[in-house]
Amino acid sequence: MSFASVIKLFLPKDRVFYGLFEEVTLTLKEMGETFVIATKETDIDKKEALLKKLETLEHKNDTTTHKIFIELGRNFITPFDREDIHYLATSLDDIADYIWGAAKRIKNYQLHEVGDTVLTEFGDIIVKSIHALHSSVHELRSMKNLRAITDACVLINSLENDGDDLLDKSMLELFNSQLSAVEIIKKKDLYQMLETVTDKCEDAANAIESIIIKYA
Amino acid sequence: MSFASVIKLFLPKDRVFYGLFEEVTLTLKEMGETFVIATKETDIDKKEALLKKLETLEHKNDTTTHKIFIELGRNFITPFDREDIHYLATSLDDIADYIWGAAKRIKNYQLHEVGDTVLTEFGDIIVKSIHALHSSVHELRSMKNLRAITDACVLINSLENDGDDLLDKSMLELFNSQLSAVEIIKKKDLYQMLETVTDKCEDAANAIESIIIKYA
Amino acid sequence: MSFASVIKLFLPKDRVFYGLFEEVTLTLKEMGETFVIATKETDIDKKEALLKKLETLEHKNDTTTHKIFIELGRNFITPFDREDIHYLATSLDDIADYIWGAAKRIKNYQLHEVGDTVLTEFGDIIVKSIHALHSSVHELRSMKNLRAITDACVLINSLENDGDDLLDKSMLELFNSQLSAVEIIKKKDLYQMLETVTDKCEDAANAIESIIIKYA
Repeated sequence: MSFASVIKLFLPKDRVFYGLFEEVTLTLKEMGETFVIATKETDIDKKEALLKKLETLEHKNDTTTHKIFIELGRNFITPFDREDIHYLATSLDDIADYIWGAAKRIKNYQLHEVGDTVLTEFGDIIVKSIHALHSSVHELRSMKNLRAITDACVLINSLENDGDDLLDKSMLELFNSQLSAVEIIKKKDLYQMLETVTDKCEDAANAIESIIIKYA
Repeated sequence: MSFASVIKLFLPKDRVFYGLFEEVTLTLKEMGETFVIATKETDIDKKEALLKKLETLEHKNDTTTHKIFIELGRNFITPFDREDIHYLATSLDDIADYIWGAAKRIKNYQLHEVGDTVLTEFGDIIVKSIHALHSSVHELRSMKNLRAITDACVLINSLENDGDDLLDKSMLELFNSQLSAVEIIKKKDLYQMLETVTDKCEDAANAIESIIIKYA
Repeated sequence: MSFASVIKLFLPKDRVFYGLFEEVTLTLKEMGETFVIATKETDIDKKEALLKKLETLEHKNDTTTHKIFIELGRNFITPFDREDIHYLATSLDDIADYIWGAAKRIKNYQLHEVGDTVLTEFGDIIVKSIHALHSSVHELRSMKNLRAITDACVLINSLENDGDDLLDKSMLELFNSQLSAVEIIKKKDLYQMLETVTDKCEDAANAIESIIIKYA
């Protein structure tokens, strides 16, 4: 019996995980979309309400992630699966943490001004990556469309490169701006946090690739 | 034979690890307490002696951690155990590294002034987390009081949130202060390093939770 | 049959990995050496060409690393091997990423001036670490000279300490310099990135140590 077929015997149990992972990526989708809306919101109260919503979503996601870890402890499947599931869960949780971290910084550092298109640009990249993650996680259930998963992972890798380039470009603009050093420190921190979100999306995509390579 | 009972067969060997882990958390306790005393010390020479003591303790901890990795290489127990032990050892070692890193920055950046209560507040959070880690590691020996371990891990997670909030609050104060940008850079670096200590305590707690879920 | 002998049965398959790892460390050697030459280059066009070359080498290394992950997914060897190989591949890939990240910052932040000896000093430490990694990876093939591997790993750990000390020293000089806060932010970022390269070299050395402990 091949390794792949041994794993397949356990698929029913895996389904618990994939249901939870879909819950996670749905929450992440909502977080990404809320973040983009927040970056465009001109009304300060509405903006703060959106940032507050991100906190609620992050807490919700913590609960789902905790359930994944509990299941992971209970289910004895295989080390590779376990590793991959652990890494996928951790990466997805990091995405939520860093989006919320960025939202907090917008509020705390009082970077509420609209017109910082860098934030929206990062938000757009993040939303695209999360959509690709969500559809990949969904495809993991049936394992019937491995090509769609691979394509999504390639897209996420390419979006991470876009995130890198956007950070480089925005840092260059920041250093060449007339902003004070303190304002530069604040924005640098915020941009780096958003770029880290795209790194974490790539980590999640790597975990998904690692899962499908073994099933292939 | 269940997975849990297979693991229990190996418990005598595990005891080597838990003894070493207790040695690590004892050293960490001393580091945390020394750090808090250092933040309150008004005499500059005494303060530097305390910071120097942290270096010695960090080196001592490196040696114990190295022993854990050597044992881990020698003992063939189970992949999950190995993973958890590796992750726990790494996280605890990171705690020592970052406390010492913070101490070094106080000295190097000449942030010796007393009255920066943020440092003491971080120190207090760290000491509480390390105490909880120490008692958890101790309980791992007998596995008789899983509830006490779980409670300690919940506490550490909550202390990590306190660390996050403290960082947010202190960064806000820093940005609203009259300090120069360079002073802000220095203090930001130091505070972030202390917040990372609380993250590493949470990582260690997660590793412990992962161990007890499997034994339960 | 001992665990070690079970592993040895699989050695022919492992050879694929070690060939790929040698390819990686050869590329890293070229990157390290190119970086050092770039830090000393006075002609701005030549300097930019060298930095550009680092980008090409980083892309080349991405391709080799991707091959390692594909092989890792295909080959079912052992969990520990897999973990170690994964960790080694990731750490080596990070070395390439951070060298290229540093090179990009020199260009983007317009830190082209020659005379920043800190960059060359970091480069020298990195080149030494990579040489030790390359010879260790080469020795993994035959496993006949474990002592040479251990010595190389000890050297890399000691070079990482040198990197730490160099960062401390250069940050101190930076803060005591007459540079503007913005210039300090830029250089701090660059130096920290180079120090991270030495951390990643240490991570790779730890993965190698973990491999040889199991074969011993």
